Amino acid sequence: MREGLIHSMLTGGALSWPNPPVIVGPGDDCAVLAMPETGHGGMLIATVDQVIEGRHFVRAGHWRAGELSWDLIARKAVARSISDIAAMGGRPLWALATGALPSDVSQPDAEALTIALHRWGTHWGCPIVGGDIASTSGPIVLTVTIVGQVGRPIVRSGARAGDEVFVTGRLGGSLASGRHATFEPRIVEGQWLASRLGPALHAMMDVSDGVGIDASRLGVASGVQIEIDGASLPLQAGVADWRAGASDGEDYELLFTAAPGTVQQMCGDHCAGTGTGLTRIGRVVSARDRSEAGCVVLDPAGGRHEGAALGWEHGR
Amino acid sequence: MREGLIHSMLTGGALSWPNPPVIVGPGDDCAVLAMPETGHGGMLIATVDQVIEGRHFVRAGHWRAGELSWDLIARKAVARSISDIAAMGGRPLWALATGALPSDVSQPDAEALTIALHRWGTHWGCPIVGGDIASTSGPIVLTVTIVGQVGRPIVRSGARAGDEVFVTGRLGGSLASGRHATFEPRIVEGQWLASRLGPALHAMMDVSDGVGIDASRLGVASGVQIEIDGASLPLQAGVADWRAGASDGEDYELLFTAAPGTVQQMCGDHCAGTGTGLTRIGRVVSARDRSEAGCVVLDPAGGRHEGAALGWEHGR
Repeated sequence: MREGLIHSMLTGGALSWPNPPVIVGPGDDCAVLAMPETGHGGMLIATVDQVIEGRHFVRAGHWRAGELSWDLIARKAVARSISDIAAMGGRPLWALATGALPSDVSQPDAEALTIALHRWGTHWGCPIVGGDIASTSGPIVLTVTIVGQVGRPIVRSGARAGDEVFVTGRLGGSLASGRHATFEPRIVEGQWLASRLGPALHAMMDVSDGVGIDASRLGVASGVQIEIDGASLPLQAGVADWRAGASDGEDYELLFTAAPGTVQQMCGDHCAGTGTGLTRIGRVVSARDRSEAGCVVLDPAGGRHEGAALGWEHGR
Repeated sequence: MREGLIHSMLTGGALSWPNPPVIVGPGDDCAVLAMPETGHGGMLIATVDQVIEGRHFVRAGHWRAGELSWDLIARKAVARSISDIAAMGGRPLWALATGALPSDVSQPDAEALTIALHRWGTHWGCPIVGGDIASTSGPIVLTVTIVGQVGRPIVRSGARAGDEVFVTGRLGGSLASGRHATFEPRIVEGQWLASRLGPALHAMMDVSDGVGIDASRLGVASGVQIEIDGASLPLQAGVADWRAGASDGEDYELLFTAAPGTVQQMCGDHCAGTGTGLTRIGRVVSARDRSEAGCVVLDPAGGRHEGAALGWEHGR
């Protein structure tokens, strides 16, 4: 679930939430909902994301760079939403999927896609319990809705001045390397961090559009400034420099802030179990006013760069 | 949520459900899920449906018959999923929406659509808590996922030989009259019938593709034959005959079966509160074998017509 019109319209304050169980509405990685007829102790989280042919993938046999098999198309569609669940520290429960398919997708291809969607849902612990397939005159549009469960949702708005800022794994080059289709959503890591750090884990989100712009969103949501040291960014092999690492989208790593010293003390430099690296990339500082909230990336020469300008802006 | 590939693939038995909380998977109007960390007494239901430009609607200003305003496009997208919730006897809780929008949808138009989606969600008691807007080179594709709550879900597979078969409202002419865009999903009626009839209400679904084909699906799901008296179908004004009434799609009325005599005794000929009519249109008879399960429509001259051939078949 990304920033977009629904977010901007609905967090603009023009519309209100009449239903008590909505704890977090649009604008975070997932919505957070109270479970009906239960007291405390458990919340549902929900997200939906789309993948669109020509934008998020190219079909195999369509003779362009980056073409994907049905299996990888389905994998990407499911993994993107799984990543949103991971970003809340949650556990996926079940999923719904839709496909708008053009007439040149044959019946066997449509079946291969459907089976692959189910397989990847099951792989990440959320069977596809329903869906809809319809025909379209345009490109393939797939959506995957995932409903999950969380004890304490880790939202974007919890970062505090003094926090340290971390990222899982390595950044950059996702499209060029093909990792945009094969990335491992950090579902285990998200739950592990939430459990390990407990209340010291203040804010978390997944890096889908570039760590610069995504950190900027986290900073704005929290009313703080995220200061990132460009030189500290953990780059994937082949990524040219800090700027590419901060700007490239589709990393699907976790970006989080925690009380100072707690990650070193409680986690070390990687997530136990998966071995995924944890790298400190910056700090949270107070924003003197609303215009300062966001993210600044410091380059190795000491120059300051607006985080919001580093990455992919939706709706542009 | 409609029949489609996901249904046929997954109810074919090729794939299994590893997650205990899935009570009803693909193939009914909604999936039915146990709520995590609760005992009995409450279940979640979930559905997703798509509306696609050129297939389910035509945009205003695109100079063809049946063109719709942004408000009515949003209304239809939400109402179709609400109708699925109604068909289970459930109550909507919250919704997620996506829009794949081509570049000729202006920013103000996209905002109008977004606001209208939210307004209609709220109108039917389920605020849109999240979503995603992306750009596409093809037609508009909207999806609306709704999660609801139900005490006892009314599924398609519960019809028993001896039941009477009923439909709410009137049938036919939905596209020609424009009702496909302005229909009232039977959300109040569905809950009222479930509450009023209790265990005497055996099976229910919404009529989206024509009462002939939809009754056929209910019959197959229940392993019985639904026998419909064509002459008894309650027709909308202007609908030519029983055949049109049985074949026209997008009625979004409720089709249900109940123990004999119970509807007359407990409900009468309409739903209290809304005044929506209840019409007995047939009966449930035993199917001697699998090939007899489905629906037969009897015409006024006594001819027998295969219900499955009367209506809109998805994926054709």
